[in-house]
Amino acid sequence: MTQVAPIAINVERLIARIDSLAEMERKDDGSCSRLALTDADRRGRDQVVQWMREAGLSVRIDQIGNIIAVRPGRSAGRPVMTGSHIDTVGNGGRYDGIYGVIAGLEVLQSLRDADQVTERPLAVTVFTNEEGVRFQPDMMGSLVYSGGLTLEEALNAQATDGTRVGDELERIGYAGTERCGEPVPHAFIELHIEQGPILDMQCGSLGAVENLQGISWQEVTIRGVSNHAGTTPMQLRHDAGYCAARIAVFVRELAKRMGASQVGTVGSVRLTPNLINVIPNQAVVSVDLRNTNDDLLSAAERQFAAFLETLAQEEGVTIETRRLVRTPPVVFDSTVLQSIEAVAAELGLPILRMTSGAGHDAQMMARICPTAMIFVPSVGGVSHNPREFTEQRHLRIGADALLRTMLRLAAS
Amino acid sequence: MTQVAPIAINVERLIARIDSLAEMERKDDGSCSRLALTDADRRGRDQVVQWMREAGLSVRIDQIGNIIAVRPGRSAGRPVMTGSHIDTVGNGGRYDGIYGVIAGLEVLQSLRDADQVTERPLAVTVFTNEEGVRFQPDMMGSLVYSGGLTLEEALNAQATDGTRVGDELERIGYAGTERCGEPVPHAFIELHIEQGPILDMQCGSLGAVENLQGISWQEVTIRGVSNHAGTTPMQLRHDAGYCAARIAVFVRELAKRMGASQVGTVGSVRLTPNLINVIPNQAVVSVDLRNTNDDLLSAAERQFAAFLETLAQEEGVTIETRRLVRTPPVVFDSTVLQSIEAVAAELGLPILRMTSGAGHDAQMMARICPTAMIFVPSVGGVSHNPREFTEQRHLRIGADALLRTMLRLAAS
Repeated sequence: MTQVAPIAINVERLIARIDSLAEMERKDDGSCSRLALTDADRRGRDQVVQWMREAGLSVRIDQIGNIIAVRPGRSAGRPVMTGSHIDTVGNGGRYDGIYGVIAGLEVLQSLRDADQVTERPLAVTVFTNEEGVRFQPDMMGSLVYSGGLTLEEALNAQATDGTRVGDELERIGYAGTERCGEPVPHAFIELHIEQGPILDMQCGSLGAVENLQGISWQEVTIRGVSNHAGTTPMQLRHDAGYCAARIAVFVRELAKRMGASQVGTVGSVRLTPNLINVIPNQAVVSVDLRNTNDDLLSAAERQFAAFLETLAQEEGVTIETRRLVRTPPVVFDSTVLQSIEAVAAELGLPILRMTSGAGHDAQMMARICPTAMIFVPSVGGVSHNPREFTEQRHLRIGADALLRTMLRLAAS
Repeated sequence: MTQVAPIAINVERLIARIDSLAEMERKDDGSCSRLALTDADRRGRDQVVQWMREAGLSVRIDQIGNIIAVRPGRSAGRPVMTGSHIDTVGNGGRYDGIYGVIAGLEVLQSLRDADQVTERPLAVTVFTNEEGVRFQPDMMGSLVYSGGLTLEEALNAQATDGTRVGDELERIGYAGTERCGEPVPHAFIELHIEQGPILDMQCGSLGAVENLQGISWQEVTIRGVSNHAGTTPMQLRHDAGYCAARIAVFVRELAKRMGASQVGTVGSVRLTPNLINVIPNQAVVSVDLRNTNDDLLSAAERQFAAFLETLAQEEGVTIETRRLVRTPPVVFDSTVLQSIEAVAAELGLPILRMTSGAGHDAQMMARICPTAMIFVPSVGGVSHNPREFTEQRHLRIGADALLRTMLRLAAS
């Protein structure tokens, strides 16, 4: 292993760049809107590319618009890559995605400032359309990069306003010519704000993200019998609203009984006719189940299905389910995780192995190379919101941890 | 007690008159719309008054528009009165209210046909605006008759279209000159369709209505914390939607645990933001509790309030309640009930003591004289609906039971 002298990232430059990108698209409510492939996205990309060039990096744009900046190593092997996205949701914060890109750039630029060269090349990537607000699917750039979606399908994806990804890439000047998926990384590591409350409640520990939840979304429709709330004895009711309530209570109990990473949410309920003195004849409820273990998630789905069957019989109602989403969990690479944890130990920082509740580009990159993520705390767990906030000291230690992890992975 | 020879009502005439009133205002979907104090109400009133006059009755119109038709008895005492209403909801059936009026008229006319005179006078009344669709409060005519609302307040009641009860009474020619509340009845008995499923499920038994439920309506607002359905651990949630579900399940358990006449319904639930992957930060739910015993209803309210307090603590949410309606139960007269039951025994008909889940003019008349009700079955419990239906044999035995009960009560 080649030893490199301890260096640190330039935290002032890191913060200034994050703030600069936020100010470019700042709205009255303090939020930031940089939807994928809009003029705002072009302005952000142009700025990031300019910084990359100023940092002496060679910049390639691939055919789905991903921006890959590479710093050569002593050898010509596969690079250690980091990256994230700079597109936002409609009323986004300033850290989601952007932090990972700017910190990655900072890692490469700090090494240049310190005149240090790694054994392997390093790379930082801006992936196209991670949020999936304007164009489906989300995580599009990394999905194409990792071979999970053909370039043609991605270019033909249409927004609700009729615009096409391929045309919008041309329009903003980011329809690149480089082949998607190259270079194949030696390892990929994404730095991101947590977007959840766990690290903030752990007094600002770092997170070593070992997996992403599998997601199961169902829509459940219960059909009962509408009747008068005064004249209908309790034992003669077929109350779709009551069944909806039982489902929400069951989902909570299921998640608590299964424990570990299992979560469950009934976020949406619509009753018909939804009147104070009428027993509802129909209820439509959403059920969101997540687990990091696919077998356990399937077991949760089976238990839920069995519960619905019993409920329908007990209450004399019909229950139909419609599957909306089912994605398997992603498990990150243990070697990359051990590097992250070794770095945290080296820096004397507490670190927590954890699960990501949200989707990230890293989950796509895990298809093609050893991958993991580093999380920094989000105050109050708030994200996709102008109140999204991470303290400067956490931005700094996250970037330092990224730097040292990349150095370790690039040394061999 | 004066003996009267057994006579029966004229069932063909009864049915023909009910059908005739329905056909006058029949809509395309088969429903009947005769909102209070509209031209349709005037047409219906004119027809009923014509039938009353043809039956040799003296007709008085009081200042709130109630129509009282009296048949003299041998003595000049207080009359035994029956009656109901002929106004309907927007898409009503043909029996709700109308059956009680036409059957009451039939009782008086059948006695005339049979040339029989009772000791006490008999009377049949059409009460103004029972449904309360156009003008509030409902049961207006009987409420004024029984002294629960001043004539002035009732005449000044305004519809949402700005029209005034007093003006509309003048317009349709039913602003009478007789004093409200006269004559004070010796007893009042109302015949009505059940509008619930109980008698229909009891193979078409008659019902002797011994009471009406007290009603408690509350709106409950739960405020929690909105958060990501994937990243928020179960133990850190403050889920307003889950609390709404717990309330609906508690209301069912409370009603089952209390048993007897206690019923409870959560008919309306509104979640915010009501999205599949967001923990709801707010829920507004309606709670409808009813019991025939006021102490028990208050006990149910107290248990519910205690539950909300515990729930708010357990889930870390705030819960506010707003009382929308609270009416005490009404208990009918045991002597009148015994007369009804004696008549059923005489006719060899099964009869069930029961509670009315809906409001009726009889509950107002119970303020000023011994009162009870007779229910006949409603097929499937359907009412306020064009599918409202009662079999002819039940219309006949209900009217026969009314006749014999009035004869008993009028004999002394």
